[in-house]
Amino acid sequence: MSAYVVGASKTRFGPSSYSLPQLAQQAMVDALIDAALRPTELKAFIVANFLGGPNESQLHLNAVIAGLMPGVRLPGWRVEAACASGGVAVHQAVRLLGTYDPILVIGIERLSGLPGTELTRNIGMAGDVILDQSQGLNFPATYALVAQRHMQRYGTRIRDFELISLKSHDNSTKNPKAHFHHKKVTQADIDAGATVASPLRLFDCCPVSDGAAAVIISSRPVDSRSVPIVGSAVCSDVISLAQRDDCTTFPAAREAASSAYAEAGIGASDIDLAEVHDCFTIAEIVAMEDLGLARPGAAVELVRAGETGIGGSIPVNPSGGLKAGGHAIGATGVAQIYEAVTQLRHEAGERQVARAEHAVTHNVGGVGGTCAVHVLRRPS
Amino acid sequence: MSAYVVGASKTRFGPSSYSLPQLAQQAMVDALIDAALRPTELKAFIVANFLGGPNESQLHLNAVIAGLMPGVRLPGWRVEAACASGGVAVHQAVRLLGTYDPILVIGIERLSGLPGTELTRNIGMAGDVILDQSQGLNFPATYALVAQRHMQRYGTRIRDFELISLKSHDNSTKNPKAHFHHKKVTQADIDAGATVASPLRLFDCCPVSDGAAAVIISSRPVDSRSVPIVGSAVCSDVISLAQRDDCTTFPAAREAASSAYAEAGIGASDIDLAEVHDCFTIAEIVAMEDLGLARPGAAVELVRAGETGIGGSIPVNPSGGLKAGGHAIGATGVAQIYEAVTQLRHEAGERQVARAEHAVTHNVGGVGGTCAVHVLRRPS
Repeated sequence: MSAYVVGASKTRFGPSSYSLPQLAQQAMVDALIDAALRPTELKAFIVANFLGGPNESQLHLNAVIAGLMPGVRLPGWRVEAACASGGVAVHQAVRLLGTYDPILVIGIERLSGLPGTELTRNIGMAGDVILDQSQGLNFPATYALVAQRHMQRYGTRIRDFELISLKSHDNSTKNPKAHFHHKKVTQADIDAGATVASPLRLFDCCPVSDGAAAVIISSRPVDSRSVPIVGSAVCSDVISLAQRDDCTTFPAAREAASSAYAEAGIGASDIDLAEVHDCFTIAEIVAMEDLGLARPGAAVELVRAGETGIGGSIPVNPSGGLKAGGHAIGATGVAQIYEAVTQLRHEAGERQVARAEHAVTHNVGGVGGTCAVHVLRRPS
Repeated sequence: MSAYVVGASKTRFGPSSYSLPQLAQQAMVDALIDAALRPTELKAFIVANFLGGPNESQLHLNAVIAGLMPGVRLPGWRVEAACASGGVAVHQAVRLLGTYDPILVIGIERLSGLPGTELTRNIGMAGDVILDQSQGLNFPATYALVAQRHMQRYGTRIRDFELISLKSHDNSTKNPKAHFHHKKVTQADIDAGATVASPLRLFDCCPVSDGAAAVIISSRPVDSRSVPIVGSAVCSDVISLAQRDDCTTFPAAREAASSAYAEAGIGASDIDLAEVHDCFTIAEIVAMEDLGLARPGAAVELVRAGETGIGGSIPVNPSGGLKAGGHAIGATGVAQIYEAVTQLRHEAGERQVARAEHAVTHNVGGVGGTCAVHVLRRPS
C-alpha cells in the first residue's frame, strides 16, 4: 500500500522546561496543522519513547497522549526499540495503513535534569544487562571500540572524526530547531575537548536532548506537499558487540537498507541525501558504509573531500544530525523523517540540499541491535 | 486478512529464578514446537513487556530476544501499553500479517525479587505521574474507588467479590500453569485477609508473577488445531479516573469489545467463555459489563447464581484469571490468548469449558487507559 507523510513537525531539540505531554502536544498540534487535519480524523496513533519509565516515572504513554485529545478514543500504544523507537514507530504506521488511515506517530523524550551518572545508567539499558552494563560498557565505551577497530582495519583517523563534527556543527547553525543552532564550533573547540572514551572526545559525542517530533502517515496524499515513503524496513540483531564477529558494520542496518532500497526500486547511488544515526562521529562513517553510500572503509574519502556537506555529492545529516542537531532519543527517528520531508519539499531554507529527489533515513538502536531505514521521494 | 493462532504456549506463572531472556526462551521454544515451525520460518516478532526498564534495567528487549535466535535477523520491537501490552502486541501481529507472516508474539515480565514499595511505585507508572502517582493513587487504591462507586450505584456487595475470588481460586487448582495451582482458598482464608484498600481485601487482589507466554500468528492454519482470531481491537482512553465522568465502566473496553464483536460478526450472547482482566475482583464485574455479558450492574446476578463457573452459562476466567492464575504483566494479554486457544482446542483438561465455540479475551492497561479485546473461534 502507498504511504505518504501528509504532516510533519518537530520541536526544537535541547534542554526544555516542558513535560513529556507538553512536548507531545506541541509536536502533535503542529503536525495536525501541517496536514490540515483534526484529531477526530485520525484513526490510530503510535508513541515512540525510550526512557519514560526510568527517567520520568511515566509509562503507559498512549493513555497520556489520549488525554491530549479529549473525547477522541483511538487505538494507540507505545513502541520501544531503544534509540530506534521512532523509526520503528514510523515503520509500524506505514505497514498498518490497511487497517488504520491516517496514523499519527509521535516521538518524545526528556533527558535533561537527571544527574549524569543516572542518565548514563538509564541509557545503558539499551545494552545487555549482563554482557554490557555489568562490564561498564556504556555507549561511549561501546562506540569507542567500534572506532578503534575501524581505525585499525581501514586506517580511519581521528582527523576524519573531526571533519564530521565540524561539518555537522556547521549544518546545525543553519537549522533553527537544532540543539546547537546558536553554537559555532571551531577546530580550537574540538582540540580543547576532553577525551570521553578513547579515541572519542567531547565533540565526537552527540548531546542528550529533550524534544518531540510528529508525522502523520496516510495512504493518500492530501496536497502537493505530501511526501511518499517508498521504502520502509526494520531489522533486529543481537544486542551486544560481544555476540558479533565484526564491530565495524551493523548487519541489521545493512539488511534494513537492502530491504528499503528494494521496495523503493532504487540503489544507494540514487540517494541524494541521508539523515543517519550519528550518536558518535564514528557512527556516521559506519552508517554511510552500511547504507552503501561508500564501500567498507571508503566513507572517509567522501568525508575528506567534503562531499558529505550540504553542497557535496552526498550530503549527510544536513540537519546537523544527532551530533549537533540533538538526540531526543524516542523522537530522533521521527525527527529524521521530518528532516527528509522538509528537504524533499524544498522547504529547508539555508540548509536546503539542491536537487533532492530521494532521501534515506537510518535510525539505530543501541550498537546496531535494531535499525530502521526509510526511503522518501520528492513529491511529483 | 484471516488470522490464526498456529502455536501457543505459556510458562507457569509465579515466582521464578529465570531471567527475562530465559523466560522468553522457554515460551518461544514451546510455541515453535506447538506450531511445528523453525525460527528461520518466522518473518517478524513482537515483544510485550511493561517494567523491563525500571525493574530489570533492561530495555531494547527485541535485541535481547534476537540473541535467542542466532543467525536469524528479523524485524522486531517491543510494545508497551502498561498491563495491556500483551493484548496490544497480539493486535499488531494480527494487523501486520499482510506484511509479515507468520509473526511471533512473546510477552514477558519479572516482578518478583523487588522490595514491595519499589514494585508498587514501578507498577504505578501505568498511572499519570501528576494526577495519580503524586496523589498516592496506586492501583489498589484506584480500583478501590471503582469498587466503592460500583457498590454505591448498583448495590454490589463485598460478598460478590468473595464469590469471584473463591471461583477463580477454585479454577486455578485445575490449571497446572497457574500461580496458585496448589493453593486451596477457603472462606476462612478470605475472612482472614487484611484490608488492602477498602473495600478491597487481600483475596480481592491478584498476585504479581514472573512469567512468559508466546503465540505465533499466521494468515493460514497449519493444522486442525489452528485457532482463528475473528475479532481484534485496541482502544486508548484518558489515563486517570480524575479525567473521567464515570468510574464504574471503562469506555475503552466497551469500544474495543464493540469493534471486535462487529469484526467477528457476533454479539456478546454468542460468547461461550471469557478471559478477562481481573487484576482485582471488582475488575471482573466491570469487565463482564463492558463486554456486554451482563447489563450495567447485573454481572453480580450471574456471579451469585454460579453462572460464571466452569460449568455455568458464561464461564469467566476458567484459567483462574489474574486473581489466581497470576499476573505477569507484559505476558498476561498473551497468556489470555493461550487460554482461549487451549479451551477452543478442547485441550484444557479439568478446567475445560463444554461446548466452547467462541471465546473473548479482555486485557486492560491501568484503570482503563488501554483495552485490547480479541474474539477467537473453535477450529472448524
